[in-house]
Amino acid sequence: MARTTKIIPSEDRRIAAWIKSWPKNSRLITGPGDDCALLHPAGRGRWLVLKTDAVVQDVHFKLSAGPAAIGTKAVHRVLSDFAAMGARPEQLLITVGCPLHLSPGFIQKCYSAMSRIARRHGLGLAGGETTRSRELWFNIAATGSVQAGRSPLRSGARPGHVIYVTGSLGGAAAGRHLTFTPRLREGLWLAEQRLASAMMDLSDGLGKDLPRLAAASRVSFAIETARLPLTRGCTASQAINDGEDYELLFTVPARLVVRLEKDWPFKTKLTAIGKILPLRLNAQTGGVNFRGYDHFTR
Amino acid sequence: MARTTKIIPSEDRRIAAWIKSWPKNSRLITGPGDDCALLHPAGRGRWLVLKTDAVVQDVHFKLSAGPAAIGTKAVHRVLSDFAAMGARPEQLLITVGCPLHLSPGFIQKCYSAMSRIARRHGLGLAGGETTRSRELWFNIAATGSVQAGRSPLRSGARPGHVIYVTGSLGGAAAGRHLTFTPRLREGLWLAEQRLASAMMDLSDGLGKDLPRLAAASRVSFAIETARLPLTRGCTASQAINDGEDYELLFTVPARLVVRLEKDWPFKTKLTAIGKILPLRLNAQTGGVNFRGYDHFTR
Repeated sequence: MARTTKIIPSEDRRIAAWIKSWPKNSRLITGPGDDCALLHPAGRGRWLVLKTDAVVQDVHFKLSAGPAAIGTKAVHRVLSDFAAMGARPEQLLITVGCPLHLSPGFIQKCYSAMSRIARRHGLGLAGGETTRSRELWFNIAATGSVQAGRSPLRSGARPGHVIYVTGSLGGAAAGRHLTFTPRLREGLWLAEQRLASAMMDLSDGLGKDLPRLAAASRVSFAIETARLPLTRGCTASQAINDGEDYELLFTVPARLVVRLEKDWPFKTKLTAIGKILPLRLNAQTGGVNFRGYDHFTR
Repeated sequence: MARTTKIIPSEDRRIAAWIKSWPKNSRLITGPGDDCALLHPAGRGRWLVLKTDAVVQDVHFKLSAGPAAIGTKAVHRVLSDFAAMGARPEQLLITVGCPLHLSPGFIQKCYSAMSRIARRHGLGLAGGETTRSRELWFNIAATGSVQAGRSPLRSGARPGHVIYVTGSLGGAAAGRHLTFTPRLREGLWLAEQRLASAMMDLSDGLGKDLPRLAAASRVSFAIETARLPLTRGCTASQAINDGEDYELLFTVPARLVVRLEKDWPFKTKLTAIGKILPLRLNAQTGGVNFRGYDHFTR
């Protein structure tokens, strides 16, 4: 291929180098290199699961966090969304917006971090795209699958259901937003066991995400502030409003609570933090302001 | 829902307004609003098709092009990739990177243009994401399907196959890069009729994309420059190197050429521009420099 290689654009060679270390994936018929990727569809009785998400320099990370942390956060955020659906992530499509001043080595290290995660979770690389931009950003689109009907949606919470979170809340600003672990195994287990009536991940903070879940379910809620699993050094207000916990927020019918707490097979902390109320009642937040994180107001 | 609506973040309300006009889609079980979208998988005997692509302010468009042209280009670029695979696009996931100075009305008009295209092609909106950024950009990820084994890949060209392009080439800078029509019907037809041995869309110009196709197929090529279908007012060099034609480039085995030209059911122009050669021969470009478009060198 020596002759044709000479006239292949440098951009293609650069992308090829970035994605070289990506693990092979058996579902992928044709990956990067053609205009689209071709895949074998989800197996019988499974639904297709889709997500797209972006991280942007100076919004979701600082360049000083370093390439490994940036690449990791970009992929982990999407995996956290799959966790929230109790779904298995399978393929990634990665777009990078890349400033001219940034060295190709920096991007290479972002991809290396992403491919390490891919290896851990068996993720294929189904596509990629590169463009110039003024700031560094990654957009990750992902496909996966879930057994039909098993995903806990945001809309499934009913009055009386108990509200749970995994892990601890607060402290994103202190660096946790880069180092969190997506709760994939926990989310899959909750869906398989049919324990969660509603579920989502805490990307914008309990103070913003719990109202979203409540709105989708047309219910209200009461939080026992004293029970919140605070990250060491955080106040209840920080735990509620810092955002970027990437823990699971889910509700469980009262009759299943004992089974959940008895069977929970993970070291990950599990905390009941309140109850779902009928819509006609005011939300009770123990006097803590629920504001969460808004990309356009902060 | 009055009570919970009050505590729903303004960002959610803004996104809801942007996507309100999007047509319903029967394959979509859960769309925007949950952590991921859930879909019925591709039907029996069909493969899943995936693509991600971005357009960035001052790289792919100027703000002065206006929101309708920007939204249209963002989606049409992706549809052009589906055309190149002879595949049916089905779902879009749209991320917008939005500068604070840009009015929500501007973004609303981008989405309106995208939803008009969605209505025309029966596309669902499976997800969306919004983030702040320094410049406006859209990342569009799309899923679709194709009959198993029917997509012409870039790697299928063989010596002796005739090289074709649809439409005319050149003139992107004069505005065509915003107003092109993705060749979806033509691509689908070529795949269904099993006429194209290799196919791709011309996003970076014949001068860059034909070498890509040749490299993937491990062949060389000869272009008859005099036969290139030039956009009015363009030179051969512009037709080859301007980029952003979004026409189909494909190869056809010699024995199928008569059938192709006889049965071609479209008004879209169809032009044989050269032949595939064995790899050992030098590429012949009639003395015109093949350089195409490189995001990192222009």
